[in-house]
Amino acid sequence: MRIDLVATAEEIRPQDLTGRTAVVFDVLRATSTVVTALSHGCRGVIPAESAEEARELAAGLAARGEPVVLAGERGGLKIENFPYGNSPLEFSPEAVKGKWLVLTTSNGTRAICRAAEAASRVLVGSLLNAGAVARELTKGGGDVVMICAGSEGSFSLEDALAAGVVMAEMKLEEFSCLSDLAVAALHLARAYGEDFYTAFTHSHHGRKLVRLGREADLRWCARKNAYNIVPVVKKGDGYELIQIDWQVNA
Amino acid sequence: MRIDLVATAEEIRPQDLTGRTAVVFDVLRATSTVVTALSHGCRGVIPAESAEEARELAAGLAARGEPVVLAGERGGLKIENFPYGNSPLEFSPEAVKGKWLVLTTSNGTRAICRAAEAASRVLVGSLLNAGAVARELTKGGGDVVMICAGSEGSFSLEDALAAGVVMAEMKLEEFSCLSDLAVAALHLARAYGEDFYTAFTHSHHGRKLVRLGREADLRWCARKNAYNIVPVVKKGDGYELIQIDWQVNA
Repeated sequence: MRIDLVATAEEIRPQDLTGRTAVVFDVLRATSTVVTALSHGCRGVIPAESAEEARELAAGLAARGEPVVLAGERGGLKIENFPYGNSPLEFSPEAVKGKWLVLTTSNGTRAICRAAEAASRVLVGSLLNAGAVARELTKGGGDVVMICAGSEGSFSLEDALAAGVVMAEMKLEEFSCLSDLAVAALHLARAYGEDFYTAFTHSHHGRKLVRLGREADLRWCARKNAYNIVPVVKKGDGYELIQIDWQVNA
Repeated sequence: MRIDLVATAEEIRPQDLTGRTAVVFDVLRATSTVVTALSHGCRGVIPAESAEEARELAAGLAARGEPVVLAGERGGLKIENFPYGNSPLEFSPEAVKGKWLVLTTSNGTRAICRAAEAASRVLVGSLLNAGAVARELTKGGGDVVMICAGSEGSFSLEDALAAGVVMAEMKLEEFSCLSDLAVAALHLARAYGEDFYTAFTHSHHGRKLVRLGREADLRWCARKNAYNIVPVVKKGDGYELIQIDWQVNA
């Protein structure tokens, strides 16, 4: 098994993903939101790259009589006229149970869509489900690319940290299967122990969210192993191109 | 003061360097070699981007009667017909004292040349002179970009580690002046304590050099604060475009 790490959605190169399992991390907040919504009974998540595409996908589902929640964020704020933003706290069981969630965010959903074009399998990772993802990767045994969505085109501490936590949960016995950036991510995980909230406040995007009054989101996303699900990206079976389903991995 | 970190020579963008001090790291081995040669009495280092350019620069100096050493590496190996490679062990006082060193390497000299095009000042960093570089940056007080040369276009552990060691030596009191990647580099420095040789063996390029029989180079480059000099890039005053001079920073 070989584990590489890609630092931003922009750096995803299809040739690096071929035949591999990709895990996408956008811990603050898209992938934490996906994990939360699915854990709360959401039927499936449909990622969209643009607000326009998200609106069309939601309208298409609604026209077929499917219950749907439309959500999206740009620059940390809810998209205008969207009923939901990108805070995991919005996706309570009451809000999402039995419904589809169409979601578009600045970095995370784009990274998921890009990864899905090339990787043999795409999982969705966060601190919330780090252990479950680690077990799935260990079970699979194949090569892995950890894809950090990044923030405004740059490396983001929280995504690399979460990738590192997944590696730590995999209890790898040696470093030689890791790329240099994967080694750095593993050290990040060790550096913060269980204090992920502090790690978030060391990140540019984490501090921005605190300034926007989203401290509670950071606390929500910092709860390692709160859920045992592994969201798995699959080809959509209808109007939508991609769906995110899930499996339990206790 | 703000400290950013660029992961590879390829990612250097002139607009990110304007008005800032850049420190270039190619710890295995170009910048360690520069520091070693200058510490051993080399008159100045002239970095060249290509082997051809290096040959011309050396010939030009020789034609003016200047004593010159021509050195270069590609893929970890000495360039064919070059008298010297890129091992710091080659540049003993006997080899370089009072002579110019014209040097071309895969990543490091390119990173130095690119940085020199845009930054207000360019220093050369390594573990060997981490403390001296840290004191220089603290004294200057302006914004800093740590430029890791990287390896084959990818993030390299040893360069980020050395940048982190410089930051650790600066005794920064808070993280908010650091970019996310700079925070990760600082954690790397803390993770390895003083055991930099082990860090090198966790890096892709370090392992490659061990396979090439260059273990002694790794041991040489792992000696933190062996020298008190800070190589400073300046506009060349003759045929050459760039020279690397040095100052003592005890």
